[in-house]
Amino acid sequence: MAVKNAFYAQSGGVTAVINASACGVLQTARQHPEEIGKVYAGRNGIIGALTEDLIDTSVESEDAIGALKNTPGAAFGSCRYKLGSIHEHRAQYERLIEVFQAHDIAFFFYNGGGDSLDTAYKVSQMGAGVGYPVACIGIPKTIDNDLPITDCSPGFGSAAKYIATSVREAAFDLAAMSRTSTQVFVLEVMGRHAGWTTAACALAAEREGEAPHILLLPEVVFDEARFLAKVKEATERYGQCVIAVSEGVKGPDGEFLSASGLRTPSATHS
Amino acid sequence: MAVKNAFYAQSGGVTAVINASACGVLQTARQHPEEIGKVYAGRNGIIGALTEDLIDTSVESEDAIGALKNTPGAAFGSCRYKLGSIHEHRAQYERLIEVFQAHDIAFFFYNGGGDSLDTAYKVSQMGAGVGYPVACIGIPKTIDNDLPITDCSPGFGSAAKYIATSVREAAFDLAAMSRTSTQVFVLEVMGRHAGWTTAACALAAEREGEAPHILLLPEVVFDEARFLAKVKEATERYGQCVIAVSEGVKGPDGEFLSASGLRTPSATHS
Repeated sequence: MAVKNAFYAQSGGVTAVINASACGVLQTARQHPEEIGKVYAGRNGIIGALTEDLIDTSVESEDAIGALKNTPGAAFGSCRYKLGSIHEHRAQYERLIEVFQAHDIAFFFYNGGGDSLDTAYKVSQMGAGVGYPVACIGIPKTIDNDLPITDCSPGFGSAAKYIATSVREAAFDLAAMSRTSTQVFVLEVMGRHAGWTTAACALAAEREGEAPHILLLPEVVFDEARFLAKVKEATERYGQCVIAVSEGVKGPDGEFLSASGLRTPSATHS
Repeated sequence: MAVKNAFYAQSGGVTAVINASACGVLQTARQHPEEIGKVYAGRNGIIGALTEDLIDTSVESEDAIGALKNTPGAAFGSCRYKLGSIHEHRAQYERLIEVFQAHDIAFFFYNGGGDSLDTAYKVSQMGAGVGYPVACIGIPKTIDNDLPITDCSPGFGSAAKYIATSVREAAFDLAAMSRTSTQVFVLEVMGRHAGWTTAACALAAEREGEAPHILLLPEVVFDEARFLAKVKEATERYGQCVIAVSEGVKGPDGEFLSASGLRTPSATHS
């Protein structure tokens, strides 16, 4: 198999790990010189490909590539730019394939959210359609850990560390005050349909009795009586009760606990 | 002068530096054995004195004391407990002086907010009144840097570091997206009457052109035309404009810019 080049681009709002993913792509590509030649990064995401503004990462040292793991922001620049449907924006896809051909690019790593992964899929279709097959790989940047097929989202680890650290910090403050003040602390955690991030709060506890004392996952229907009994037990036994609750927890009626019942007033149609 | 013992207590909501202040008291006291004997810490703040629950810090190693600098929470326990006026709560003040006398305590370090510093003052008065003088020293824990007489509040440094770090993080994210998305970022900063924390945002910039590009301090009347011209200049020159604005900035009319004009509806008196 002939050696082909690769294109890597960052897309959408940046996250704490998008550059670590870049590092993973670049380091791994370097381990496979029999398949992948140079890796070009797009300056400001996919716009870098459309404008042929490519950053040749092969000139960067191993140290510089390794440093990406701890680099904030988006090292190569990101963008908010949606390619749209092939049907309506065919010229843009053709332009992409043209640039890929000009630089002998047969691998496309697109690091972004759902739209970006969709774009990667379309580029793949387009390439196949015009007889220039491109292996398109979407790299998620989300903290959500419930992506299909994906074992562990790159973004989940930092979210897990952050939330567990926050729980521990809050628990220390609570412990300092619980004799004369607050004994129960509730932390609402992101994750409307999956309890991964809430479950990660458990990393804060190393010993029996340490916070969090209660985790409420969206996968488990809220049981008020059982919950209150647990709160009572924890405050009596440990002098405090730290609760991590997913924003998506539902009651027996199937309604979100977080639903306030308030609605935006209907617009007046006059 | 005879060697006397000291009492140290933590009070109110804990901050990032309350234990560092404890460390400062304990280490400094150890440097003056000719004046200060043991330092007792109150378990759960002033309640530790009222209940004679004293922690003898003299048995702790230098390392343990030094580690306080990086210890979260309140190492000795804090409390929300107000002693009230001497007039109405004389018995409590007498109890305090009694415990101080029993343990030969002539120095009282009280680490807390405004109420705690007021309490320290009252203990000082009470001691003088009953012929048992106690040197009472209030140690502020606030991030506010505009305390009278105080050159630099212990809490200001961590707040300054936090806010400057946040500005830099936001600026990296903004730089990553500014070609196709947001170019102007506004960070509202605490400080209703003093611009210390807003000014600290400037620590984020190491070179000309780096964020923040504009600081709006409460000490300076907001000038809309001048502000907009600066925003235009920064976006044209640097491709982005990061603004740190104090919550206390006022317009030429003397009103807070942050005033929404909304008011809580008056309660109905029926």
